[in-house]
Amino acid sequence: MITTRRHSIATSGQGDAHDITRVVARAVKESGVSAGTVTVFVVGSTAGITTIEFEPGAVADFNGLLERLAPRAAEYRHHLRWGDDNGSSHVRAALVGPSITVPLVGGTLTLGTWQQIMLLEMDTSPRTREIVIQIAGE
Amino acid sequence: MITTRRHSIATSGQGDAHDITRVVARAVKESGVSAGTVTVFVVGSTAGITTIEFEPGAVADFNGLLERLAPRAAEYRHHLRWGDDNGSSHVRAALVGPSITVPLVGGTLTLGTWQQIMLLEMDTSPRTREIVIQIAGE
Amino acid sequence: MITTRRHSIATSGQGDAHDITRVVARAVKESGVSAGTVTVFVVGSTAGITTIEFEPGAVADFNGLLERLAPRAAEYRHHLRWGDDNGSSHVRAALVGPSITVPLVGGTLTLGTWQQIMLLEMDTSPRTREIVIQIAGE
Repeated sequence: MITTRRHSIATSGQGDAHDITRVVARAVKESGVSAGTVTVFVVGSTAGITTIEFEPGAVADFNGLLERLAPRAAEYRHHLRWGDDNGSSHVRAALVGPSITVPLVGGTLTLGTWQQIMLLEMDTSPRTREIVIQIAGE
Repeated sequence: MITTRRHSIATSGQGDAHDITRVVARAVKESGVSAGTVTVFVVGSTAGITTIEFEPGAVADFNGLLERLAPRAAEYRHHLRWGDDNGSSHVRAALVGPSITVPLVGGTLTLGTWQQIMLLEMDTSPRTREIVIQIAGE
Repeated sequence: MITTRRHSIATSGQGDAHDITRVVARAVKESGVSAGTVTVFVVGSTAGITTIEFEPGAVADFNGLLERLAPRAAEYRHHLRWGDDNGSSHVRAALVGPSITVPLVGGTLTLGTWQQIMLLEMDTSPRTREIVIQIAGE
């Protein structure tokens, strides 16, 4: 049994983080799937999905790490192509990855208490993000 | 056909690495699934799952990389919240990710000879880690 | 319904990037699966799979990031084991990860227009890479 939901989120630009755990959990519940997996995928190459303890400190620390690894103000060869300014967004997103797969047991995500699913905007300007939530199981 | 197994591992703290390939392969064998996928997911926001050539040198090199990226002794905003000391754990775990999905062909994981599935503890204190191994297929 | 395809790619060594989106899309089409997921997995511990806007600038930027994180010419404890020179390859691959899972809707990958699936060779010498493409769905 496969169920697919799409969900849109308006973001404010690089570093804007959204806890999407409830949205995913609701889609799982509505699917009626008890045992299986949910895959959460963000469309586009300048955003990412991962899990984190979703509190402002840890989220800021993660953004700080990404800024150290790939500073927004650095020069990127990607900028030469289209006059874009989001080279930092592309390399951060390729590193973090666009998706996560979480097992479902008894109709519930097997996340820890302090483990949330985060959509992280990495682009330099506001975007409307489309998330695909796909539940497979029985 | 969906089969779920849980497996607990006691860890000794940040950097403690466990080769869980055999545990996963056994769960796959017991499931009777021939073609499909296995998703391996660690519950919690301060540990990660990836693949690596599991020998002490490469594992130490990977821990060395994580320490350079997110030093344990640095200051983190997460520490201000609960008086925790594991900000480095949270950002490392968000970067590495909590899960991996491996295809199964002929009832066997499609890993390379020198490619093992690793649970990496990143928290600063010993933990009992729960791993969810979910096999889906036919 | 599970369909598995294997695909081989000859690479030229560290940093060699391949856009495998078409290969994956063709396997999906041939599978006849409309709704489900495709898991793309590279066999071996010195290559990775992720998504990126596959244009030379962004790919070079991503390789530049990996070189800053784990310089090829640095010393690695892995080198002491076999006399290998690919410690940088192992830690980069463990960080990026060997696989990606993308939802399928209407028989189509839910990628963005500028989001491609990339195989990134990270080993220091040319390799023949085997990719497992597994489609599950209905």
